[in-house]
Amino acid sequence: MIATIIGTGLIGGSLAISLKEKGAASHIIGVDQQESHLQRAKELGIIDEGASLEEAMKRSDLIVLAIPVDAVLKVLPILMDKVQPGQVIMDVGSTKKNILQLVAGHPNRGRFVAAHPMAGTEYSGPDAAVRNLFTNKTMVLCDVKNSDEDALEMVENMVDQLQMRTVYMNAEEHDLHTAYVSHISHITSFALALTVLKKEKEQGRIFELASGGFESTVRLAKSSPDMWVPIFKHNRSNVLDVLEEHIHQLQQMKTLLEEEDYDTFYKLIQKSNKIRKILK
Amino acid sequence: MIATIIGTGLIGGSLAISLKEKGAASHIIGVDQQESHLQRAKELGIIDEGASLEEAMKRSDLIVLAIPVDAVLKVLPILMDKVQPGQVIMDVGSTKKNILQLVAGHPNRGRFVAAHPMAGTEYSGPDAAVRNLFTNKTMVLCDVKNSDEDALEMVENMVDQLQMRTVYMNAEEHDLHTAYVSHISHITSFALALTVLKKEKEQGRIFELASGGFESTVRLAKSSPDMWVPIFKHNRSNVLDVLEEHIHQLQQMKTLLEEEDYDTFYKLIQKSNKIRKILK
Repeated sequence: MIATIIGTGLIGGSLAISLKEKGAASHIIGVDQQESHLQRAKELGIIDEGASLEEAMKRSDLIVLAIPVDAVLKVLPILMDKVQPGQVIMDVGSTKKNILQLVAGHPNRGRFVAAHPMAGTEYSGPDAAVRNLFTNKTMVLCDVKNSDEDALEMVENMVDQLQMRTVYMNAEEHDLHTAYVSHISHITSFALALTVLKKEKEQGRIFELASGGFESTVRLAKSSPDMWVPIFKHNRSNVLDVLEEHIHQLQQMKTLLEEEDYDTFYKLIQKSNKIRKILK
Repeated sequence: MIATIIGTGLIGGSLAISLKEKGAASHIIGVDQQESHLQRAKELGIIDEGASLEEAMKRSDLIVLAIPVDAVLKVLPILMDKVQPGQVIMDVGSTKKNILQLVAGHPNRGRFVAAHPMAGTEYSGPDAAVRNLFTNKTMVLCDVKNSDEDALEMVENMVDQLQMRTVYMNAEEHDLHTAYVSHISHITSFALALTVLKKEKEQGRIFELASGGFESTVRLAKSSPDMWVPIFKHNRSNVLDVLEEHIHQLQQMKTLLEEEDYDTFYKLIQKSNKIRKILK
């Protein structure tokens, strides 16, 4: 199988490495607006060749969109118009509703499979690509009833070869649940970094004391705004909903501290400890 | 050197292991209110023997208080009254101002060294004790001018043997800076866990999608309320100050999303990315 990866950054680059290593693809064509990324991906051996979108589409069995969701919304319609029978288009974007609304009713809708691998790091670009990013992680496939059987099968086989679990959801469910387990974590980290950077400016010396716990909660704040602003934009109402709840929880803790109600604070922490059951 | 560790949990237990391994102590006596902890610490080989506080004090060169800060405030005065010339008392509590105020002016004040190792995990109890928890981490020593020279030297030598960096601060600085880099991270994690647990109850299925980013931001929510409520209590005004700023930052992001001002949101994320300079 010849695969084209549009966007040779963290996700696209890691996918390219895994597709090759696990034998799911024999040849990888990279497409990237940033010439320097394409060059670097070639140097790193992540892709076999760089090509224009036109050229790559002519020769590929599978075309993967691994670019920020706002860019997916621009490029996907072009691909959908050009896709040939037997070819499959797949995206790996972090929001799904807007993307699927965009292609709903397109005559070639069946050739598209909407996917979201629940894996990533806070880094970006070809140098951030790592092997085995996807191993034992979850791949969400959305609204699969609207994909052609053979297209879905090609993607499902690929997911198996990547040693990933598959979860099926509709786009609404997907956007809701990712707001809870992924998008709000990023908002929190960005806000925490801003908080502490501001305090540091006032006080100095803070970071001498930073240890593992701090690093854990703020590491996502290193994430790229190019990726995340489009996610927040395209999942705005779900993110606002969970953000409101999060602010409410923090305000409740603030009130308990102000009122020195440590018994209730203790009970709240005990309640939050239930997260142990979910995490390893 | 014979060392007594009062509190054979995560910090005390890990310290016992390291003191023995690095040759800083030849014999470790464990003291713990919970008989089961003492038993387990012995089984695990963390301590050489368990004893009563009375008994342990008679035979020790160094006595380390590794118990929650509210318990330190109860036990420390007893130790201070009993301490003999040549003996050193040290605590490893996460707040310092209240502890140091309590012993200020005590005739044996010089025998006490206030310390805080910037290391830990979200687990507790003897089974959570790990080797090398402290290696390459920072030990904060507070208000050292009030400790006797020989007492400080004993602790400084021990910190060296543990392969830790030393940072000197006064108690006020310590409590301010730990609020920024440690205490607020825990508040955020507890609140995030509560947020997501509440949403899950409404919606189900959330945790199927949880990945590394989520785990990173909420793992501190597994931390024990027995340890953390006293910390928030004894560092209340600093924690409230930084919590207020954190809520402000989150509210600002919420407003930007509501107003769909994505340019300003982008700039905020860029600003938060500056945390890269501080973290590895």
